Amino acid sequence: MPLRKHQITKPDGRYLIYYSFEGREPPEPSVAAAEAPLEPKSGHMELRWHPLLEEWVIVATHRQERTFLPPAEYCPLCPTHDPSFPTEVPASDYEFVVFENRFPSLRRDAPEPASPAPPYAATAAQGVCEVILYSPDHDSTLGAMPLPVVRRLVDVWVDRYRELAARPEIAYVFIFENRGREIGVTLTHPHGQIYAFPYIPPRVERELAVAARFRAERGRCVYCTVLERERAEKTRLVAENESFTAFVPYFARLPYEVHLVSRRHRSSLVELSARERGGLADVLKTVLLKYDSLWGFPMPFTMVMHQQPTDGREHPDCHFHIEFAPPYRSRDKLKYLAGCETGAGSFINDTLPEEKAEELRWAEPRT
Amino acid sequence: MPLRKHQITKPDGRYLIYYSFEGREPPEPSVAAAEAPLEPKSGHMELRWHPLLEEWVIVATHRQERTFLPPAEYCPLCPTHDPSFPTEVPASDYEFVVFENRFPSLRRDAPEPASPAPPYAATAAQGVCEVILYSPDHDSTLGAMPLPVVRRLVDVWVDRYRELAARPEIAYVFIFENRGREIGVTLTHPHGQIYAFPYIPPRVERELAVAARFRAERGRCVYCTVLERERAEKTRLVAENESFTAFVPYFARLPYEVHLVSRRHRSSLVELSARERGGLADVLKTVLLKYDSLWGFPMPFTMVMHQQPTDGREHPDCHFHIEFAPPYRSRDKLKYLAGCETGAGSFINDTLPEEKAEELRWAEPRT
Repeated sequence: MPLRKHQITKPDGRYLIYYSFEGREPPEPSVAAAEAPLEPKSGHMELRWHPLLEEWVIVATHRQERTFLPPAEYCPLCPTHDPSFPTEVPASDYEFVVFENRFPSLRRDAPEPASPAPPYAATAAQGVCEVILYSPDHDSTLGAMPLPVVRRLVDVWVDRYRELAARPEIAYVFIFENRGREIGVTLTHPHGQIYAFPYIPPRVERELAVAARFRAERGRCVYCTVLERERAEKTRLVAENESFTAFVPYFARLPYEVHLVSRRHRSSLVELSARERGGLADVLKTVLLKYDSLWGFPMPFTMVMHQQPTDGREHPDCHFHIEFAPPYRSRDKLKYLAGCETGAGSFINDTLPEEKAEELRWAEPRT
Repeated sequence: MPLRKHQITKPDGRYLIYYSFEGREPPEPSVAAAEAPLEPKSGHMELRWHPLLEEWVIVATHRQERTFLPPAEYCPLCPTHDPSFPTEVPASDYEFVVFENRFPSLRRDAPEPASPAPPYAATAAQGVCEVILYSPDHDSTLGAMPLPVVRRLVDVWVDRYRELAARPEIAYVFIFENRGREIGVTLTHPHGQIYAFPYIPPRVERELAVAARFRAERGRCVYCTVLERERAEKTRLVAENESFTAFVPYFARLPYEVHLVSRRHRSSLVELSARERGGLADVLKTVLLKYDSLWGFPMPFTMVMHQQPTDGREHPDCHFHIEFAPPYRSRDKLKYLAGCETGAGSFINDTLPEEKAEELRWAEPRT
């Protein structure tokens, strides 16, 4: 599916890219790229080394000032309609738009921090934080969009992955969506995010090490093995087509956790064929509709993609998958991560994965 | 400080232990050990192996039924005053009381689960989950209690650690407190918890591996090294005496995170001298009062203790410490763990540890 990109530079130096499909023209570039004044370089920004856990912690103090749940008429992610209230998107209409986060955790031109005394260490918070707007419609959700639109979003993700992966300083392209006030979303306009990290994040590093051990011991991919098992047992399946399978895993840490796994061993979005991309869009939309149908309101969640690092090394054990982690344990109760989960790292699931999968299998949108 | 214990067995087989100090008599054993009917063996309970992260997930479905924020007059943790509403504590007064959780994640007599097909694995959720009530007073908090009471609680912790550590199936004694509705506490009566795990939890395992690597590379304890650095720089110190130091670490993942670290290399509570136990109580109370003074309401937090595993192996790198993780990033905003933290494992701190430490240093209770 041919896509067209039209890139502009905002007055503060951030890029903004309009994506258009099927011969549709990109938005009029004549609309002024206006926006509220900002000081993106204020505050303190660096990576600090955590010597007790061997991981980087991102310090980004300007993020304290980020816009917090504005009323809909002041949404900074809506298209600019009123020149006296310029938003992030100067065009009045578009298909998808990607731009650098105004309150980034990682930045292309991150300053070099002062060196602390050992055992401490700091380095520049170099990277890219992007926002992807799925729609100019403030009240839409990804699941409600027509399948061809979701399919095009997959192409946008592929393009973003490819472009960010090409940057030499980027070791990992992390595509995700935080949805719902219950997990702290500060802007409700339908959007996803991308963090292009200068390091492989700890959770992913752990997955890679585990997958390598599994292959060394059993001679095959752990994701392929789990997928085979879930498909054989069927009790935890949620949705499937010939390219992707969605299930609540046997070992789910959270009640409504769903994994969406490529049927074939593909390491990243880029490796998916056109047919597989279509399959991904299809299962993704199905899962989203099931979530939103379950209780009659949009299910809050984090949706994260795990794929091939872009650090230049080979990672043959990578198996592209998406994980959904909704914060509810029942319709009216949240599952909190408290002492046991955060302080010991041990998860307690108050529900049976087989039962939650069945609930989701039955959940269908009312037509 | 001599402590006396008086243990009774509840009708459902759970134990309850009253702790008394300084010659005070334990509560009248004649008070009936009454309580609400319960079916502790209902539901599904097992440990499931997470093959993608190599960790156990606790499945405990009866926990869905646990008491959720009852009105104060129906608090199940208050002493029984009205025989028609029996609570967990049959005595009308006591100093401290410890009993097995009615909705445990781990249990002494956990059933043996059916074996799933590989790569899945399950085992019994064997262990102990205890509740420690700090006071019969429903509205008290640990920081508000007189220092001698906090000092006695340290002795109770030592005794619980010792007793649970002696059980051959227990690999780790995890003492913690979840405080505040903001992190999902379902009962507000002042209490802590202990999970006696049959395995070393993942977060602790990681800390141990990192400390061992640090020692191999630099010939010393990483906690001693961090402590020395924090004491030398002073900018992140919160409170200190000759036995313990409290600070917001240079590498804090959360804005108001505080680490309370033994000045000497002690592996567990049991290794602390009487003087050091007094020092722990003193710094602990100081930190709690600072938290509660900062914004004029009790700061919610998780408080977790990391100490020597009890799996029978040597862990020379263990260094006893307590970590506080409050969920706020400012007085009126919560710091959520969303896609980046849970899906990538990478933490973003929107604040500067040096500034948060200064706020806490200045925070003092109004007298």
